[in-house]
Amino acid sequence: MLKIGIVTVSDRAFYGIYEDRGGPAIKTWLETVISNEWEAIIKLVPDEQIQIEEALLELVDIQGCSLILTTGGTGPAIRDVTPEATLAVADKVMDGFGERMRNISLKYVPTAILSRQTAVIRKKTLIINLPGQPKSIKETLDELFVVIPYCVELIGGEIIETNPEIITAFRPKQN
Amino acid sequence: MLKIGIVTVSDRAFYGIYEDRGGPAIKTWLETVISNEWEAIIKLVPDEQIQIEEALLELVDIQGCSLILTTGGTGPAIRDVTPEATLAVADKVMDGFGERMRNISLKYVPTAILSRQTAVIRKKTLIINLPGQPKSIKETLDELFVVIPYCVELIGGEIIETNPEIITAFRPKQN
Amino acid sequence: MLKIGIVTVSDRAFYGIYEDRGGPAIKTWLETVISNEWEAIIKLVPDEQIQIEEALLELVDIQGCSLILTTGGTGPAIRDVTPEATLAVADKVMDGFGERMRNISLKYVPTAILSRQTAVIRKKTLIINLPGQPKSIKETLDELFVVIPYCVELIGGEIIETNPEIITAFRPKQN
Repeated sequence: MLKIGIVTVSDRAFYGIYEDRGGPAIKTWLETVISNEWEAIIKLVPDEQIQIEEALLELVDIQGCSLILTTGGTGPAIRDVTPEATLAVADKVMDGFGERMRNISLKYVPTAILSRQTAVIRKKTLIINLPGQPKSIKETLDELFVVIPYCVELIGGEIIETNPEIITAFRPKQN
Repeated sequence: MLKIGIVTVSDRAFYGIYEDRGGPAIKTWLETVISNEWEAIIKLVPDEQIQIEEALLELVDIQGCSLILTTGGTGPAIRDVTPEATLAVADKVMDGFGERMRNISLKYVPTAILSRQTAVIRKKTLIINLPGQPKSIKETLDELFVVIPYCVELIGGEIIETNPEIITAFRPKQN
Repeated sequence: MLKIGIVTVSDRAFYGIYEDRGGPAIKTWLETVISNEWEAIIKLVPDEQIQIEEALLELVDIQGCSLILTTGGTGPAIRDVTPEATLAVADKVMDGFGERMRNISLKYVPTAILSRQTAVIRKKTLIINLPGQPKSIKETLDELFVVIPYCVELIGGEIIETNPEIITAFRPKQN
């Protein structure tokens, strides 16, 4: 069955200083869009590279997720290390995702260019760093998700079916 | 004399399962556009990083090509390793080419962001990863080629003259 | 007090073959835009990776600059090594800056994609590679500078205030 990992990276959410809003925003968005059966596996970790890497490794190597979406920790501050952790577990880096996500966010805020969001492939899992804010998460997924089911298929992951009233996943006619 | 390497990377073409269409599409495009004398050096290799690297090294270090265009092997699948081979032989990485090629293809298909196409310089050779499909090769070269002759000059390669009825190569007035 | 490093990288300017125009263009632009007190620390180095790195290290580690702007040495030619030196001293790489600067310059010249400009963070300093030409420097800073004060704040650098008649620095409402 299709498994999707959702990883919130945030010192403040991890230590209970405030409630995690990014992880639930991702889950709600996916519940609206994905039409076949799937299971969410939720993780909440602090802004520590080792702990982020361990969460990603478990979700790929043990849980066999086809897709992992992270939220938080992609800015320029010293505690922002989500991209470093993501790149550390990568088999392949997908530069086009980072470029595209920054260009999507740039329509809304000029500070989009400060984001170091990336995406990588490890084994049969696509791992994507999303923004931290629920509003930005939705703006990004609304435009980006169209290519995700096809990418997951190309790397040997599970089928992701989408509700066509919301998003029609794109698959090229020729490969 | 100007030499241009054309490298098709494809298991299926290499093993004769289907005919290479990418390499011939590149050659035909170049024949229409380049107006000075040049020689095409054609290679067909499977999706194996070592064999792609060996083809690139021969075209740069022995043949002295000023430009090498590859086609195929830039997607997210496990057998897609053309960017890895290209980066492995690089002296300098030209990030602007990958960004630009994905933005060109994004006008046609949203899956353009799945491409890991890159470009690098090795010695006096510019090496560029083009898409696999003849249609996408043409869309990319039609927009991208305008800057290639100037780039090749900057790195000490041979002069590339273009048919001005098709493409007028751009050279800045000030360096 | 706010310190900003301005580093011209140019063999010809360093050896007195022609006058440095990039460094003064950056200084003049900043004098027009920044409204709080600041000090410019000026460096002129040849296109040698070690000497560029030494200049950057002194400006970060000894002088404590919050921002360093370089000009020159970002092209594809063999002597162009400013990005290599910048990446060599980096704690974090900010890919969004290079992408954005190439997209800004692409509005003016197609050869913008040949630039290898990047930006990185070292300690509490943001280091950005600007183009070489005064005209391109101004085109880039006019669009890019809006996000710089916020980025410098996020990494613990000094406050940069801007003349609102020219540029209103952007700070998101939510972090």
